[in-house]
Amino acid sequence: MSAGWFRRRFLPGGPLPAPRPPRPRASPVPYRRPRFLRGSGSGSGPADAPRRPDARPVRSPARGRALPWNAGYAEIINAEKSEFNEDQAACGQLCIRRCEFGAEEDQEWLALCSEELLTGHYWALFDGHGGPAAAILAANTLHSCLRRQLEAVVEGVVATRPPMHLSGHCVCTSDPQFVEEKGIRAEDLVIGALESAFQECDEVIGRELEASGQVGGCTALVAVSLQGKLYVANAGDSRAILVRKDEIRPLSSEFTPETERQRIQQLAFVYPELLAGEFTRLEFPRRLKGDDLGQKVLFRDHHMRGWSYKCVEKSDLKYPLIHGQGRQARLLGTLAVSRGLGDHQLRVLDTNIQLKPFLLSVPQVTVLDVDQLELQEEDVVVMATDGLWDVLSNEQVAQLVRSFLPGNREDPHRFSELAQMLIHSTQGKDDGPTGEGQVSYDDISVFVIPLHSQGQRSDGH
Amino acid sequence: MSAGWFRRRFLPGGPLPAPRPPRPRASPVPYRRPRFLRGSGSGSGPADAPRRPDARPVRSPARGRALPWNAGYAEIINAEKSEFNEDQAACGQLCIRRCEFGAEEDQEWLALCSEELLTGHYWALFDGHGGPAAAILAANTLHSCLRRQLEAVVEGVVATRPPMHLSGHCVCTSDPQFVEEKGIRAEDLVIGALESAFQECDEVIGRELEASGQVGGCTALVAVSLQGKLYVANAGDSRAILVRKDEIRPLSSEFTPETERQRIQQLAFVYPELLAGEFTRLEFPRRLKGDDLGQKVLFRDHHMRGWSYKCVEKSDLKYPLIHGQGRQARLLGTLAVSRGLGDHQLRVLDTNIQLKPFLLSVPQVTVLDVDQLELQEEDVVVMATDGLWDVLSNEQVAQLVRSFLPGNREDPHRFSELAQMLIHSTQGKDDGPTGEGQVSYDDISVFVIPLHSQGQRSDGH
Repeated sequence: MSAGWFRRRFLPGGPLPAPRPPRPRASPVPYRRPRFLRGSGSGSGPADAPRRPDARPVRSPARGRALPWNAGYAEIINAEKSEFNEDQAACGQLCIRRCEFGAEEDQEWLALCSEELLTGHYWALFDGHGGPAAAILAANTLHSCLRRQLEAVVEGVVATRPPMHLSGHCVCTSDPQFVEEKGIRAEDLVIGALESAFQECDEVIGRELEASGQVGGCTALVAVSLQGKLYVANAGDSRAILVRKDEIRPLSSEFTPETERQRIQQLAFVYPELLAGEFTRLEFPRRLKGDDLGQKVLFRDHHMRGWSYKCVEKSDLKYPLIHGQGRQARLLGTLAVSRGLGDHQLRVLDTNIQLKPFLLSVPQVTVLDVDQLELQEEDVVVMATDGLWDVLSNEQVAQLVRSFLPGNREDPHRFSELAQMLIHSTQGKDDGPTGEGQVSYDDISVFVIPLHSQGQRSDGH
Repeated sequence: MSAGWFRRRFLPGGPLPAPRPPRPRASPVPYRRPRFLRGSGSGSGPADAPRRPDARPVRSPARGRALPWNAGYAEIINAEKSEFNEDQAACGQLCIRRCEFGAEEDQEWLALCSEELLTGHYWALFDGHGGPAAAILAANTLHSCLRRQLEAVVEGVVATRPPMHLSGHCVCTSDPQFVEEKGIRAEDLVIGALESAFQECDEVIGRELEASGQVGGCTALVAVSLQGKLYVANAGDSRAILVRKDEIRPLSSEFTPETERQRIQQLAFVYPELLAGEFTRLEFPRRLKGDDLGQKVLFRDHHMRGWSYKCVEKSDLKYPLIHGQGRQARLLGTLAVSRGLGDHQLRVLDTNIQLKPFLLSVPQVTVLDVDQLELQEEDVVVMATDGLWDVLSNEQVAQLVRSFLPGNREDPHRFSELAQMLIHSTQGKDDGPTGEGQVSYDDISVFVIPLHSQGQRSDGH
């Protein structure tokens, strides 16, 4: 991942420097970089164009390369809408070594677990906006941030129960309030590491984009298989679902101006200066205009889930903080998502109003206890960017999965074929199983992760 | 509900004045006060004491009076732990008339629906702390606040779809952003009215307690049956569940310092002055002490669902904003709930630190579409204060419901008997169906609401 390679591979002619770790750590353990695959949609020439005459050309999705590790048949495929793909992806093995402490008093305790080593698998989708730069940086950076964050707490992650003190320090006292500890689990540390990794990666992207004079942001959806559990961390509007024979289980939820309305309005309530007098915090069923002045109209504020009526004042006529519905909903008239990485420089057009305070980089993390599932060979997790879910419902995707896999048991590439087929189903083919000929004009990336191989712990202990 | 009656009934010798509506409205429609029943636990003498020698005397629960309306057999029963019952309850019919507008231009439109009248049913449980005063005020006030809030929007509630303008005003324009409206439903207005009613009631309680020199607060759990739907609004740690033959569905969730940790920490992050330098916002597995200084210990902050490690600084040794776990968890070392009514004067002992900014009066509202259920005669909603749920799980309550009702089909008081039996099951009787002899020493109030009679719309249109 040299700077030259980085530029050549993703940004022809672009001056973007290679990402630097934000907090270099002196470590005597040699850094073994996981081999990472990025699906950058290197499709070759137009083909497979949708039937509808108004459809833009769609390149043939290139099948992702075989994975360099034994994770099964996970695949990524990109459908491209523009010359530079704003969707980016990464997957690979996460190799977590123990963290080295400097303090001498820690050495004895560390010796007890000095050979601890944890391996996991990592899949990530990034859907860029305002250009591909942030998505590319995220695809190149987030796994390193996650590895660093996990290494900082790995002694806790591999313990039966994470110790109160990372260094094994024990405080003995007779006062119960200083003794009784809450039951923190190893998975709580992994969740914390994912949360911190997203924030660290966001800081890296902010610095790198500023240094290179570039802009943009991206959503991030990450799945990590570790110690028999699958962690799904999401910031944005991509989605992961578990599909089994008799079950469809959402593993993420979308973060958009609509789903995060109360958090966003609350922030504007606490810091009204963020709106610079240009926007109204209140939500109305449509934009108000002069004729509405003095009328009693439907509205809601940050503390309300329900609606009520209020008398329209002049300040209510301002442009709304969140405007539009569904796919058209925009934060400050600008952004369709409310969580993601990057966008540090993003401002409302012709103003100095920043998006970032409203846009969070913190992901929501869901944990799937794979070891507790009675896994069937065709249980899969489908991860995809919003382009897929705009056109196919969870149920339609599950139907496609269930109709495809059983008939292709002998095909070693069947999970790849399934990922391809899911994308094909969004390109207006009337003969698809749903028969509705839906069309998506967005970049689409899909991972199909077979869980069967994840169920058996593949980590080193 | 005269002042004299109010005092006599609930506060022997107490100087509490009758609650006044916060915003008197001139209305030509005569106010028809619903007849309300308050279950104040007027138990008569000790009996039915638990077997355990250390148990405090428990009075025989008094069966609630027959309801004055056709809501079925809903019942309230109080188990008492102290001379003045901190649990209070109310139920009755809600009669919603149209709101009168003063403006002449509204009269024509109003004439179209001048006879609109909506009736519903109302059940409420209030669990007081710091004395019964707030719970009594809430039992006497909240239904009036809700009636007022519903009357203010009743034209929207009875419309097929709530109009953008309450007065029927129409704005015609060619710009789509000023035309297309979000699909607000009648139930959104009821949710909004419940949210507003809780806040209005909270303000009334604040004023009344201050005027009478009294203190205290209470949780509030309200169920409203209206237009074929059951609305459950909850602020505190009471709980409502739906029990059917094959289904247990939670209709509320509890608001405690633990369940609302992130909101509470977030508030302290935004307004650190609220902690007056006396508390630490961060959460640790146990309280820290001097020996922990400089160690790396588990912690989490407002933006984290997972845990991580941090190096302990001096400020981390302060008393935690949220301390303890489960039933022992306390907000600012003081309060076991994070939502409720009252407590405007409540401060941390020996400080000027107020609880109220952290304590919210906004309820969470759940909607059960009763008309969509294929109701069986024995489908019930069980509402109870925390004392019941401390001892019985949802599954145990459902088991008691399902084992009791089918064998008592001929008993006209069977829902009352069931409510009694549920409370008896918490009094350490080893021969109870759960056979575990659990004991609760808290006040307990239970409503058992048969849904069968709610399914048929009993409102006036």
